[in-house]
Amino acid sequence: MNIVKLKNQDENEFKNFLSWLEEDLNSVNKFILENLAGSISLVTKLSNYIVNSGGKRIRPLLTIACAKLCGYSGTRHILHASVIEFIHTATLLHDDVVDNSKKRRGRKTANYVWDNKSSILVGDYLLSKAFRLLTNDGSMKCIKIISDVSVNISHGEVKQLIYINNLKTTESQYLDIISDKTAQLFSAACKISAEICEIDEEKKEFLSDFGKFIGIAYQIVDDTLDYFCKSDESGKEPGNDLKEKKMTLPLILCYQRGNTKEKRIIESILSKDNIIDDDFEKIVGIMEKYNIKFDCLAKAKHFSIMAKDSLGIFKESATKEKIIRLVDFLINRQN
Amino acid sequence: MNIVKLKNQDENEFKNFLSWLEEDLNSVNKFILENLAGSISLVTKLSNYIVNSGGKRIRPLLTIACAKLCGYSGTRHILHASVIEFIHTATLLHDDVVDNSKKRRGRKTANYVWDNKSSILVGDYLLSKAFRLLTNDGSMKCIKIISDVSVNISHGEVKQLIYINNLKTTESQYLDIISDKTAQLFSAACKISAEICEIDEEKKEFLSDFGKFIGIAYQIVDDTLDYFCKSDESGKEPGNDLKEKKMTLPLILCYQRGNTKEKRIIESILSKDNIIDDDFEKIVGIMEKYNIKFDCLAKAKHFSIMAKDSLGIFKESATKEKIIRLVDFLINRQN
Repeated sequence: MNIVKLKNQDENEFKNFLSWLEEDLNSVNKFILENLAGSISLVTKLSNYIVNSGGKRIRPLLTIACAKLCGYSGTRHILHASVIEFIHTATLLHDDVVDNSKKRRGRKTANYVWDNKSSILVGDYLLSKAFRLLTNDGSMKCIKIISDVSVNISHGEVKQLIYINNLKTTESQYLDIISDKTAQLFSAACKISAEICEIDEEKKEFLSDFGKFIGIAYQIVDDTLDYFCKSDESGKEPGNDLKEKKMTLPLILCYQRGNTKEKRIIESILSKDNIIDDDFEKIVGIMEKYNIKFDCLAKAKHFSIMAKDSLGIFKESATKEKIIRLVDFLINRQN
Repeated sequence: MNIVKLKNQDENEFKNFLSWLEEDLNSVNKFILENLAGSISLVTKLSNYIVNSGGKRIRPLLTIACAKLCGYSGTRHILHASVIEFIHTATLLHDDVVDNSKKRRGRKTANYVWDNKSSILVGDYLLSKAFRLLTNDGSMKCIKIISDVSVNISHGEVKQLIYINNLKTTESQYLDIISDKTAQLFSAACKISAEICEIDEEKKEFLSDFGKFIGIAYQIVDDTLDYFCKSDESGKEPGNDLKEKKMTLPLILCYQRGNTKEKRIIESILSKDNIIDDDFEKIVGIMEKYNIKFDCLAKAKHFSIMAKDSLGIFKESATKEKIIRLVDFLINRQN
């Protein structure tokens, strides 16, 4: 499994962290593969392709880690971690069609290898399969968590679509979008463990916030790296968001801070049908002038601190320390 | 609301039939509209457009009718009938993207008025919303019915995609596809009423079959009319299935029955990138020679008889008589 890419010095430490969760993560992978097998060949192939395409399994990792934090000793969290990954994968498949993406994590996207039709239908399959697995588990509260988050995600995606190419998008609107489209699933990944552990409502609320704030921080980092990571490091193509005219935080801040002349440059680039690498470099140039990378990552850090503080209600423990380190790993990633 | 189009002599009778269910159907429409309001504007607009685009509400109608058959006196069937319609609408939205359709029921499709992106995302929204509504109702058994059918539908759609342009598709494979992609939702529409009425398991099983057989019959009629209805009567464009190279029953039978020369003609048409009206006329010509329309509708009738016989376990009543008439109305429709 491809793990979050980090600065070299952090990598060993992160491996140690994961070794602690390794058994459960392997169980999740096994559960996922078992539940994709025996289906129609195209569904199995395409699902396997995307589920195993170097995904970071960050959300299942949070589910497992939170279960440990709550002292859970059962096995239900394996199913729930897998359900969360199914929902995530379904949204990736549909996202790639909506964004017309050709590459994700350095590999060709499923819609590019197969076609848009297959991606839409297999996405629907994974979403439905997630709910079917949940009915096997039998907890109405867990189904409510997943159906709520599933509505939120589609809300967030629609909002993102509406704000495409709208340079007047505010930072608040951006936060609202990423909260729905990303952070709520992180939140659900944590909350669902709280639910199966039956911890008290107060702690559930804090764990829910914990996930949400990591999600917001994570998405801000993701959106920032789309302007500032190097293609060869990540396998990811930088500049995608600009080409799709997505109003992410770096672009919002860049437009807000730019002077009249710079605003005109940005407007003229955004009005083009086909944004090229040269346009991208121009915008990154303006961003560098206004310290956008640093400021965006600082905002991510702000949310990661909120995440860590949300754990204040939990007693000190080795597990808690490890989870707090996990937050740093996720937010300090290089791609 | 646009109601199933029938031969003139049947129309009045059908109106009488519906007047008996009118109050509940109005409640379903109200429930649907209320649950689409207050969402993001694009979601509301697009959902309203498709939910109100002259849909025949056949599936909610079955839910309501089955609830009456089981002597139900509560109100939960309104939510479930609406959930069934949400699932149906979500699949329509995704289908139209997958098929690249421009028209449905004589109106422009949502993906044509807005775009594919919006249709994919609003489809996801409706599917998720259906599950959220079900958690409000709180029955795990109903959630299981819907999540099972939802997996079936995506299976069926994927299978349909795999068999595109495959002239060696068998009638059994076709029946398997339409069972998954269409009939299971008809079945769920009936079964869910059986579930909320808590009738005995045997009757549930029969009602489930009742819906399934209507669904198969309905889809066969639909696929047949795609070759034999007149455009001006239905607002539907005939010939869509051929243009999309879908292996529906008329084409399967036509290829099986055709002589060597006719088989070559069909193969050569199917191998074209762009099938034109003239090609369609040629194929319809071959179909007429082999009595395909009559035979397909006879097969539909076979399944509609199975549907009616499935109600044998229910005592004679005015309600049962009406439901049996409904089957005839649905299968004798003109478009």
